[in-house]
Amino acid sequence: MPRYKLTIAYDGTSFHGWQKQEPPGEEPLRTVQGVLEEGIRSVVREPVVLQGASRTDAGVHARGQVGAFSTNTPIPLEKMSLALNARLPDDLKVMQADEVASSFDPIRDALTKGYRYGISFGTPGTHAPDLFGRHYVTSIHHELDVERMQDAATRFLGEHDFASMTRIHHGRESTIRRIDTAHVSLISPGRLQFDISGNGFLYNMVRTIAGTLIEVGRGRREPEAIDDILSSLDRQEAGPTLAPQGLCLEWVDYGDPGEGDET
Amino acid sequence: MPRYKLTIAYDGTSFHGWQKQEPPGEEPLRTVQGVLEEGIRSVVREPVVLQGASRTDAGVHARGQVGAFSTNTPIPLEKMSLALNARLPDDLKVMQADEVASSFDPIRDALTKGYRYGISFGTPGTHAPDLFGRHYVTSIHHELDVERMQDAATRFLGEHDFASMTRIHHGRESTIRRIDTAHVSLISPGRLQFDISGNGFLYNMVRTIAGTLIEVGRGRREPEAIDDILSSLDRQEAGPTLAPQGLCLEWVDYGDPGEGDET
Repeated sequence: MPRYKLTIAYDGTSFHGWQKQEPPGEEPLRTVQGVLEEGIRSVVREPVVLQGASRTDAGVHARGQVGAFSTNTPIPLEKMSLALNARLPDDLKVMQADEVASSFDPIRDALTKGYRYGISFGTPGTHAPDLFGRHYVTSIHHELDVERMQDAATRFLGEHDFASMTRIHHGRESTIRRIDTAHVSLISPGRLQFDISGNGFLYNMVRTIAGTLIEVGRGRREPEAIDDILSSLDRQEAGPTLAPQGLCLEWVDYGDPGEGDET
Repeated sequence: MPRYKLTIAYDGTSFHGWQKQEPPGEEPLRTVQGVLEEGIRSVVREPVVLQGASRTDAGVHARGQVGAFSTNTPIPLEKMSLALNARLPDDLKVMQADEVASSFDPIRDALTKGYRYGISFGTPGTHAPDLFGRHYVTSIHHELDVERMQDAATRFLGEHDFASMTRIHHGRESTIRRIDTAHVSLISPGRLQFDISGNGFLYNMVRTIAGTLIEVGRGRREPEAIDDILSSLDRQEAGPTLAPQGLCLEWVDYGDPGEGDET
């Protein structure tokens, strides 16, 4: 049975996250997985299950989410994106389609993932509001010290137990992950970007790391505190989970020939 | 009576244009002027009339619209934007407030205005859809020749009678206007910008000029045809009026000391 890998972009503003949600006796919620499966079904004329590389939360965007599905209806690759995009809404598009081995698993086979957080900051009135980017940034109504944040960000690099940076979990899964890059950049007055990549991210991990960096940027914690927070393995020690609006899944890397990290 | 000039930005997607519309017996439509007057009223605690420099159509955006109002309640300038923005919705913000002479008229006193059109183009499937900019571009489902368009654009420069580039009008107003700059730039594959500025624009004039340039870019007209279309003074000779979604009023220049054209 042919299997296809889709590289997917969406504006998360009007989706209830990636994962299909069909509350019994109610209308199904509008989710990325749900809308995509419906679009694929209308092209291949059979129900499909679409596996996603990352279960993004409500409000989180993607430029390079990856999904995979198998179907008995082979479709010429060059027609796949076009046929799907003709059926998909304006805020959800297939950027690329590839045929993959029938064993391809978008979660297990992912080598690294990259996320970007857009953050606007400043005491109200000090910077002009970023009106056109308002769905793609999280607003912090305080000044932030970007150098302190960058100092703190580098302390997440390498392999750590990230138990302090995720919601209470069930202990079935290892909480050890490797962070490869972590950059905080001021891109204009009152506007910064936080880019992070690694071999995997626990539930809410990027949002909790970002929330903890904000605490450092506001001067409420020292950059050195990151080391202690990590070794505590205690979620209570970390900062708050940052709002989802500014977060975007930029890419998922499978080590495909000729494809590098895209950031 | 103190008079204030506001520099205003808005995402036109969810507004029925600038001009207040209160159909008798119905709910007033959501317009920029209506929402702003309501916000100002709640700050100065008296009804105000806000004059705008440009009556932008539904769907048209602004980064530098200008409005002016007079009030008996003087407000410290440094608090004006903050107080207004606290009351305004996410898609409408005051970028700057200035006190002006009581005779200031935002239409009559404007020296030049600048508009930018964002246009995405290409036969479907040739370029990745610009998902995050979708409200800020107009999509043309054909290839466009940017050099031909630039050649055509320069033919609008200078003083002309633009009767062929506006909706049928009532003859009370002169249709002579001066265009100072007109640039078509390819900013990425399948994405161009059209920047135009001049001493004033007739109703639908920017959209009709852009629609005519698209005809040239598609190869349906020659760049030289612009001269004949202009001298015909006949709206039927020009191309279609382009959709409003990609258009943005970038700035209005009043020759204020220290302020230049911002593009």
